[in-house]
Amino acid sequence: MQRYYFDHNATTPLAEQVLAAVLPCFRETYGNASSIHHFGQSARTLVERAREQVASLLHCRPREILFTNGGTEGDNIAILGTVRACGKTRKHVVTSTIEHPAVLNTCQALEKEGVDVTYVRVGAEGIVSPHDVRAALRPDTVLISIMHANNELGTIQPLTEISKIAREAGVTIHTDGVQSCGKIPTNVEELDVDFFSLSAHKIYGPKGAGALYVRKGCEFEPIQFGGTHERGRRPGTENVPGIVGLGAAAELALKSMESDGKRLAALRDRLERGILERVELAGVNGRSPRVPNTSSIHFDHVEGEALLIALDLRGFAVSSGAACSSGAVKPSHVLTAIGLSPERAKSSLRFSLGKQNTEEQVDALLDAVPAVVSHLRSLSPAASR
Amino acid sequence: MQRYYFDHNATTPLAEQVLAAVLPCFRETYGNASSIHHFGQSARTLVERAREQVASLLHCRPREILFTNGGTEGDNIAILGTVRACGKTRKHVVTSTIEHPAVLNTCQALEKEGVDVTYVRVGAEGIVSPHDVRAALRPDTVLISIMHANNELGTIQPLTEISKIAREAGVTIHTDGVQSCGKIPTNVEELDVDFFSLSAHKIYGPKGAGALYVRKGCEFEPIQFGGTHERGRRPGTENVPGIVGLGAAAELALKSMESDGKRLAALRDRLERGILERVELAGVNGRSPRVPNTSSIHFDHVEGEALLIALDLRGFAVSSGAACSSGAVKPSHVLTAIGLSPERAKSSLRFSLGKQNTEEQVDALLDAVPAVVSHLRSLSPAASR
Repeated sequence: MQRYYFDHNATTPLAEQVLAAVLPCFRETYGNASSIHHFGQSARTLVERAREQVASLLHCRPREILFTNGGTEGDNIAILGTVRACGKTRKHVVTSTIEHPAVLNTCQALEKEGVDVTYVRVGAEGIVSPHDVRAALRPDTVLISIMHANNELGTIQPLTEISKIAREAGVTIHTDGVQSCGKIPTNVEELDVDFFSLSAHKIYGPKGAGALYVRKGCEFEPIQFGGTHERGRRPGTENVPGIVGLGAAAELALKSMESDGKRLAALRDRLERGILERVELAGVNGRSPRVPNTSSIHFDHVEGEALLIALDLRGFAVSSGAACSSGAVKPSHVLTAIGLSPERAKSSLRFSLGKQNTEEQVDALLDAVPAVVSHLRSLSPAASR
Repeated sequence: MQRYYFDHNATTPLAEQVLAAVLPCFRETYGNASSIHHFGQSARTLVERAREQVASLLHCRPREILFTNGGTEGDNIAILGTVRACGKTRKHVVTSTIEHPAVLNTCQALEKEGVDVTYVRVGAEGIVSPHDVRAALRPDTVLISIMHANNELGTIQPLTEISKIAREAGVTIHTDGVQSCGKIPTNVEELDVDFFSLSAHKIYGPKGAGALYVRKGCEFEPIQFGGTHERGRRPGTENVPGIVGLGAAAELALKSMESDGKRLAALRDRLERGILERVELAGVNGRSPRVPNTSSIHFDHVEGEALLIALDLRGFAVSSGAACSSGAVKPSHVLTAIGLSPERAKSSLRFSLGKQNTEEQVDALLDAVPAVVSHLRSLSPAASR
C-alpha cells in the first residue's frame, strides 16, 4: 500500500544529508570522543563541528550548546537543574497549561519536592498571555518555562515579550523549542531566553540526540552524575553519530527553513481549506500565529482515535489529539486547556506536514478524510442526535 | 597509516549485523514507537523485539528491561532512583573505591543530599571482598552498588557472594555491568541482583543506547519526567535505531561470547607474556579472575600519557590509566585504590582487545611497546636514578 506520513511533529525520517554524515561514525570514526588517541580525536573533531552547526541554528556560541539525548532531557536539565541550583528555601515556578509533558510532569515532580508552581491558563487561541505570566510572578519565582511553539496546535508563543518580563523580574527563563526548531527562526539572542531545548528527530535528525542551549553564566545543578563530559554538565560517552546527525540536521534546517516554511504553509492551508469545505461540523483548533506545518482539527461526533485508525487503514498517518494511557483514551490536556469539551477534544486530529509531503498527497488525504468522517458518523449514535 | 585499535573498553565499532539492523530504522521504520499508526507500530514491534534480545542476554523477562541512553544513565537511575524512592529518613549506601565515575560521582551527589556512603576498599588484586561489604552494612543501608567487572583492570567481582549478603540483609543490590556484558555470562538470576546496567557501544552496538535490568517488583523514583514511555519509568521518544542496535548487539554478544572470550584471552595472554618478557620494570595491575580482553600494565619510569601518544603516532590506540581533568594528569583512582603509587599508576596503560584484533596485530604491538618504552626511558631523568 502507498503510505503517506502526516505526523512530522511526532518524528521525522532521517534526511539524506544527515544519514550521509552519520554513517561514517559507526565504523570509521567510531572512537570515544573522550579518548586521547587518533580514533578519539577524530570523533572529538566531529562532535565540536556539530556543536558549531547547532550554535549557528540558535545564533549562540558553541560553548553554550550542551548535547543531550533529546528534548525531554533538555527540559528536565533546565527545569530541575535551575530550581535545584537555586539556594532559596521558598521557590516558585511559572509555566503554562499547554506545555509538553516533559515540562508539566517535571514541574509536578518539583511540587512534590515542595516547590510552588503556577500553571498559567490560555484562551481559545492557544496563546499564553504575557500579561498573565507577569501576574503570576512572585518574589520567590526562580524560573519561567514557556514553550516556543505548541506541539499539538502549532501556536507560537509571544516568547520575546515573556522574556522581557523575566528579565525585568530577574527570573531565569527556559523554553521548550522542540516544535519551533527548524520551522521558524530560533535566535536565542532575540528570544532572549536562558535555556532552549531542542530534539534532533523532529528536524530530520536521529532519535536519541538533542541539545540544550545554556546561556553563558547560567548555573544549574546536573541531574545525572559521572564522567567529566560536556564540561562536567552532562555525563556519559558522547553519542557521536547522534551528535553528528543533529549537527547535520541543524545545518539543513537553517538552509531550508524559509523555503520549506512557505511550501508547507501553502500545503497546510490547502488541507485546512479543503477539510472545512468538505466536512461539516469540523473546525480548526487554535489560531495564528502558528508554525507553518501544523493543523489541529476537530470533527464533531467522531472519535479521533477511530478516525486515526480508519485513515491509517487507507495509508495515511496522522495523530489524534489524545494520549492513550493505561487503556483509557483521555482527551488531550492541550485541547481541553483551550476550552474544548472533552468530546470535541477527543474528536480532534493533528496533521503535521513535512519535507516529503506533496500537493498530490494532500489532495489524496482530502479525498479520504470526508469519506472516513461520513462513514464513522453514520455508525455513531451521537451524530444522529 | 595502518591503525590498530586496542581500546575496546572505551568503545567498539558497530558490528556488521548491528549496522544492518539499524539502517532500516532511519528511513523506513522511522515512526515514533508511541504513535498508533502503521509507522509507529512498525517501530514498536522492533523495540519490543530488541527488548527480548536484551532480556535473553541477561536471562530475564523482557518487561524487566528498561531502555536508557547508556551505562551512566542506568547507574544514575538505579542509584538515585532506589535511594530517593526509599522513605527512610537516614539512608546509607555501600559501594567500592574502584567503581566507575558514573557510580562514584552519583554516590557523592547523594552524600550532598545527606545520604551516608561507605566506599569499601580493595586490595592489590583489585577485587572487592564480600567480607568487607558485609562489615560495611548498617541498619539503615538501603543499597549496595558493586560493579561486575572493573573497566580498567578487568577484574571480576564476586557478585554472587555479595548479592547473598544483600539478600540476607534485605538490601537492594545494583551492579554496573557495562564491562562484563558481552564478555562473561551475565545471568541476572544467578548473579541475583536487582539492577544491572549495560551500554550498547561497549558490545559493538551504537553509542547513545543502553539498558537497565530492573528486577520485577523493584521500586525506584524516576530521575527524569515527561511522557509515559517505558511504562512511566523513563520518558522521552524511544531511540528506535539505538534500541534496535542494542538488541542486535545483545544477540551477537550471546552468540559469540564464548568463542570470542577464548580467542581474546589467548591474545591478551600473548600480549602480557610478550610485554613482561621484553620490557623490564613492567607488571600487570590486578589479577584473575578477569574478563578475557583486558590488561592493565605499568611501565615504571615512563609517563603512561607519553607512552599512549608515542604508540598512537605508530598507529596503536590504547588507553592510559589516567583521567585527564582540567589540564592536570591525575593518577587513576582505580590504580591508586589497589595500592599503586601515583607514579606507577601514571605509568600504566590499558590494553583492551576486541573482535577485529588478530595475532598479527598483537605481534606488531609487541614490537612497538618495548621500543617506545626504551626510547621514553632514555629521555626520562627518573629512569636513570
